[in-house]
Amino acid sequence: MSEIAVLDEATLRAAVPLDLAAVACIERAFAALAGEGVVMPPVLSMHLPQVNGEVDIKTAFLPGFSGFAVKVSPGFFDNPSRGLPSTSGLMVLFSAETGRVQAVLLDNGYLTDVRTAAAGAVAARALAREDATSAAILGAGTQARMQLEALCLVRPIDRAVIWARDPAKAERAAAGCAARLGIPVTAATDARDAVSGADIVVTTTPATSPILRGDWLQPGQHVTAMGSDQPGKSELDPACLQRAQMYVPDRQSQATKMGELRAAIDAGVVAPDHVFAELGEVVRGAAPGRFGPDDITIADLTGTGVQDTAIATHALAAVAKKEDPS
Amino acid sequence: MSEIAVLDEATLRAAVPLDLAAVACIERAFAALAGEGVVMPPVLSMHLPQVNGEVDIKTAFLPGFSGFAVKVSPGFFDNPSRGLPSTSGLMVLFSAETGRVQAVLLDNGYLTDVRTAAAGAVAARALAREDATSAAILGAGTQARMQLEALCLVRPIDRAVIWARDPAKAERAAAGCAARLGIPVTAATDARDAVSGADIVVTTTPATSPILRGDWLQPGQHVTAMGSDQPGKSELDPACLQRAQMYVPDRQSQATKMGELRAAIDAGVVAPDHVFAELGEVVRGAAPGRFGPDDITIADLTGTGVQDTAIATHALAAVAKKEDPS
Repeated sequence: MSEIAVLDEATLRAAVPLDLAAVACIERAFAALAGEGVVMPPVLSMHLPQVNGEVDIKTAFLPGFSGFAVKVSPGFFDNPSRGLPSTSGLMVLFSAETGRVQAVLLDNGYLTDVRTAAAGAVAARALAREDATSAAILGAGTQARMQLEALCLVRPIDRAVIWARDPAKAERAAAGCAARLGIPVTAATDARDAVSGADIVVTTTPATSPILRGDWLQPGQHVTAMGSDQPGKSELDPACLQRAQMYVPDRQSQATKMGELRAAIDAGVVAPDHVFAELGEVVRGAAPGRFGPDDITIADLTGTGVQDTAIATHALAAVAKKEDPS
Repeated sequence: MSEIAVLDEATLRAAVPLDLAAVACIERAFAALAGEGVVMPPVLSMHLPQVNGEVDIKTAFLPGFSGFAVKVSPGFFDNPSRGLPSTSGLMVLFSAETGRVQAVLLDNGYLTDVRTAAAGAVAARALAREDATSAAILGAGTQARMQLEALCLVRPIDRAVIWARDPAKAERAAAGCAARLGIPVTAATDARDAVSGADIVVTTTPATSPILRGDWLQPGQHVTAMGSDQPGKSELDPACLQRAQMYVPDRQSQATKMGELRAAIDAGVVAPDHVFAELGEVVRGAAPGRFGPDDITIADLTGTGVQDTAIATHALAAVAKKEDPS
């Protein structure tokens, strides 16, 4: 019986950077999701109003991966008043052959950050123009920085702008990204200004009402909306979906409940029974991405269990390789 | 930030015996389940026919408990051909206040065995006659032994009989129990004979069709059915529920889907909208248990997330106390 690896956050941060290997692993997960044999149950959500918390549990079984992950993501929103981050959690990796525990990844949400940013790169590679050089990020949190970093891995981004409701946060995020990426990154005080002229727009906020208007969009732009992952959230004006030539959810069954698609259906902009090609089908070439340079494309990322299984498998291999590089 | 305890099966077996403390902890969980503020989402089940496996994930938040557990129970039924047990798994305990990981309990299902057997004791204490001295166990697996052991903790059991489809297994289980408990335990080749004259009957098999007939039941008997925990399973002839004066599920919403209640509703013996008092309500005294010595009572145990949260909290405290008895 093999030993169970128990890996802490520092070990995982050191071994699993946001890089092209992580992007490739998440791309493979989306491709598998569009194929046969994936089992991905609906997210188990536990709402805990009495402690101002919520817990999400995700899992997925993917053919071709040696393990499957179960991820538990608690969000306890009174934590900051205790000096603790709101979110934490872990992933447990099980053998896909025997079901036995292989590893416990005490990542406090770090691997989720990586797999979420990597999905942004997968979406951009599948849908954004190859010559996209400018990015606008709406939001200034950890994902804002990581989404920009992820775009730079897959497109020749040479400038970016960051907008956030709090201008001071946008300034800080812009300065941090500029230093880290070595490209000019500025802060915008107006979201419309930020979006104007950007080849790629990423929305990464916890907004519950639209922060990106449909009439702001320009031909050729690609939008990745990744903030909405709960039924009450929404970042895109439903008119964005009307204006886009291509709308691609990570998983339509989820996007209908908790993605931008939900608000668009509620607004009557999209028929509830309309079937969209999912990101995995575009990745596999089974569905088209962008038809031409002037298309407006939208990726709607709600976060999927297949990404967790993929990044957990990738992380265990990366740590093993670091410990024994031979 | 406090350290995360990672506890292996041997440590947990040594620190968490099936004893009255474990029974009290599970009884407290059932009482809480019948009160305010419990959050227990439906079980997340992932069926994996391609590897002959299934994975169940349970969780529950209970007011008054310092943590909440998430339990992952994989069953991979080709494992025995590899020399491995079919079931394994772990529990993760999170702080009920901050959501942060407190402990990883790598128990391979041991704590589930304890909390399941303890629920049998809770049911017997709530429903069986106080002077019950004889037990019949239908089934010869780990739970057969543990259920008998649990009964002996709460009732003056002085003899028992074990029946199983495989007589050799029944013989071995009977010999093992007799040696362990110091009371006469015999094996029966006929289930009806086993049940006849027993004060308490426990069914603990993976049966998918009834092994206990309604017309075998005798006045005064208490039955605990704990084998059925999946929609396809069933141990009791629906006529058992017809004959009983009292039927008590651990959680009616679960019993309707995966307990004995399901088959009884399907058979038309119970109206689908009939509301039963649950075990927790009987434990709290909010609902009656047995009215008189001649009643037939049935407890239908499908297994609940509150038991997992309770036993995980209990286990962490027990290990801490063992390590630092001061």
